Amino acid sequence: MGTAVKLAVIGAGSAVFSLGLVKDLCLTENLAGSQVSFMDINEDRLAMIQKLAARYADELGADLRFEATPDRCAAMRDADFVINTASVVSHEDSILMKQIAMQHGYSYARGAGPGDYFYRNTRLMLDFARDMERVCPDAWLIQSGNPVFEGCTLLARETSIKVCGLCHGHYGYKKIAAMIGLDPERITWQAPGLNHNIWLTHFLYDGQDAYPLVDEWIRSKGEEYWSLDTPTMPLPEDRKGSWTDALTRAWDIDLSRAAVHMYRMYGLLPVGDTPRRGGWWYHSDLATRRYWYGEPYGGQDTELSWPLYVENLERRIAEIARLAQDPKASIVASLGATKTTEQQVPIIDGLMNNVEGEFQVNVLNNGALAGVPDNVVVEVPAIVNRKGIQPLRVHPLPPKVMLEQILPDWLGMERQLLAFKTGDRSILLYNVLDNHQTKTYEQAVAVLEEQLAQAPNAEMDAHFRWPSNW
Amino acid sequence: MGTAVKLAVIGAGSAVFSLGLVKDLCLTENLAGSQVSFMDINEDRLAMIQKLAARYADELGADLRFEATPDRCAAMRDADFVINTASVVSHEDSILMKQIAMQHGYSYARGAGPGDYFYRNTRLMLDFARDMERVCPDAWLIQSGNPVFEGCTLLARETSIKVCGLCHGHYGYKKIAAMIGLDPERITWQAPGLNHNIWLTHFLYDGQDAYPLVDEWIRSKGEEYWSLDTPTMPLPEDRKGSWTDALTRAWDIDLSRAAVHMYRMYGLLPVGDTPRRGGWWYHSDLATRRYWYGEPYGGQDTELSWPLYVENLERRIAEIARLAQDPKASIVASLGATKTTEQQVPIIDGLMNNVEGEFQVNVLNNGALAGVPDNVVVEVPAIVNRKGIQPLRVHPLPPKVMLEQILPDWLGMERQLLAFKTGDRSILLYNVLDNHQTKTYEQAVAVLEEQLAQAPNAEMDAHFRWPSNW
Repeated sequence: MGTAVKLAVIGAGSAVFSLGLVKDLCLTENLAGSQVSFMDINEDRLAMIQKLAARYADELGADLRFEATPDRCAAMRDADFVINTASVVSHEDSILMKQIAMQHGYSYARGAGPGDYFYRNTRLMLDFARDMERVCPDAWLIQSGNPVFEGCTLLARETSIKVCGLCHGHYGYKKIAAMIGLDPERITWQAPGLNHNIWLTHFLYDGQDAYPLVDEWIRSKGEEYWSLDTPTMPLPEDRKGSWTDALTRAWDIDLSRAAVHMYRMYGLLPVGDTPRRGGWWYHSDLATRRYWYGEPYGGQDTELSWPLYVENLERRIAEIARLAQDPKASIVASLGATKTTEQQVPIIDGLMNNVEGEFQVNVLNNGALAGVPDNVVVEVPAIVNRKGIQPLRVHPLPPKVMLEQILPDWLGMERQLLAFKTGDRSILLYNVLDNHQTKTYEQAVAVLEEQLAQAPNAEMDAHFRWPSNW
Repeated sequence: MGTAVKLAVIGAGSAVFSLGLVKDLCLTENLAGSQVSFMDINEDRLAMIQKLAARYADELGADLRFEATPDRCAAMRDADFVINTASVVSHEDSILMKQIAMQHGYSYARGAGPGDYFYRNTRLMLDFARDMERVCPDAWLIQSGNPVFEGCTLLARETSIKVCGLCHGHYGYKKIAAMIGLDPERITWQAPGLNHNIWLTHFLYDGQDAYPLVDEWIRSKGEEYWSLDTPTMPLPEDRKGSWTDALTRAWDIDLSRAAVHMYRMYGLLPVGDTPRRGGWWYHSDLATRRYWYGEPYGGQDTELSWPLYVENLERRIAEIARLAQDPKASIVASLGATKTTEQQVPIIDGLMNNVEGEFQVNVLNNGALAGVPDNVVVEVPAIVNRKGIQPLRVHPLPPKVMLEQILPDWLGMERQLLAFKTGDRSILLYNVLDNHQTKTYEQAVAVLEEQLAQAPNAEMDAHFRWPSNW
């Protein structure tokens, strides 16, 4: 029998995420007796989640208490863990920014990039962490929403809160394995770096280097796969049926031309969200994206695929809402009774009940990844048990990966944090100028000003001032 | 009476530089009895320099011996100092690369940038330094040709030679002073950074902060100056008459729109070659350059001004050749008998004869400039005397300058050195892709391959191979 915890879930209205968490809690006997406090500003959604969670636990006979409150301090008071998935930037906000960017000549996938997403969500994260310092100073913050890299680094530097960022991206190794016909369960892997910028340093199949199998796949099947119009490649079990066919195809970029090009440049495969980023030349326009990321969608961030993603999220939320409205429906029958692959609950079980596991976490570096300053949050494997979250000091990344991928990303993060701290508008301008799609200085100024003038960015617009001699 | 030295001058065919050095040596009594060994692969030019040097010393009654040899080891054997001004990349080579780049859509001023200039000259510098390790292992190498930043860093890391890089750029503070009507002699200044990337952290006039005078000049005279078609601003004494009017105008960028824009972004003026670089948006094409750097030439690197510069160099060399052919001419009457503002000879006098001075040098950082790794060559002031070259630990540069200017430049240098060491052709490709003027991936590959296929780049072409899985 383990130790019960008090857990606060901020942004609990993210129905899919919250119900996954509830499943994992209900199926983790060690955490019996725990109390979960859901918080969201959307009270309807919040009430729905609370009811569904209670019904699910009830059906399984799990001993958990669920409460719901729109008051984040009430939710977090005396918590042992705070899981934050909140985003203040809505999909509508993001799409508005993309539309403005496109009017100024930028592609949908990349946008203009003054950093509004970063700034607004990080501001929210910092506000939460300041509240935590007052109401639950010893709690772990498990940051489960973006921007993980910038936000966790800021919080680790500026607050006294213990922060651990989580992301799904590293599971990309399973998709790579499945693509080349390997059983993901027999893979041993490692992919350290920065969040959304991780590289597969170790990829073993039954203990043997599996990279030659990747090379063989590229040689024998690459060209055929890259010229496909519809998906035919095998998918990992945990993704089958969970997406529409279109989304499946749009998301299958793990061995896309872009990913393999990065592999050729760096000698390591980029994992998860990493191939989704990469050099500007993969993203110039939809046609270019289609070449590098596959027909017909050009990967998951284009004007064709992203609306499908948002629509699908809405459809899943609607399904959950229908479930909530049907008092006779079995929640277990709908959601199943197997654990998700999310790391939040196993990490909590590790920290509280010494159920040791290895996880992919985002924590302050302090020497884990050579060549990155100590005060930067890195994404590395860590052993988690009662002693804490203990990152492995991983094998260094190749110099080329450091110089072309990791360190430029580090500088970008530092610029975002400097902008956040100083409110210097010229740093936002620099960020737009630094976008390879910017063609003239005037274009950068115009798109920046038009984006900052939008209602959702009002606080940001006020925060950022030009230098005094501008 | 000081200590005589043996001094080797590599690339001594650079007539203007070598004769300036001869002047400074002849006018530095402490160095009487010294021996100067000129080396160049152009033997005609070499013989001419030797004769002119001997005649000049003779006219002044200076006690110096001059020898000339095309054998660099002979020139450097037992030297106390080696001054290297050699460049294996000719003006013709550079212009050929620019022409190819322009055919692929790049501007003359920026080119495509695979790093051929860097690679070929650094290869030469390393060869010299390896020879020095054998024939004069205790000598100082005073590196007086580009690339100072990358080359000196490589030599400091890879060889046992003491290396100090010198550049003229820091004298830009005098031009700034003259522009706003201040006597350069009454200025106290400091401008640390990386070579060609230095920032005016201190600018005092009679001990008082002179930045308000810059602000006043910008406010009251900036617009008028920026709209001029011909130069009317005062010039420092040492540049009057030394350039044609056209060159004078082309070189006057110290308070150009670009320089002042950088000042507005960073709060510090960029000095010397620094405003000549800066963000891509100053350099997109000739019209853009004209706006930011002034009519009609658009600064010193354009298709209008650079040929004038090369032509002027050739004219000066022709003048020197005429002087050499006239046995009755007075060399002193032609060259004058005042010291130049070059730092080489005063630094030698400081190191050998304890004539202490403060100089702007490029040496391994080791803590002089905060935030830059220890094993990187920085440009900082140093006290030079018998104890050695002792850099000042300068006030840190502002975070914004570090994040947008210094550290990206550092990463670029590290990429050049990694490319040099590994021969990885994909790093050259990355450099071209990183050029903001590159519009497509295919364009980058095409311009890279066409540049490497040119005869002057044959050794480089052979050195750089694609990764094995390309």
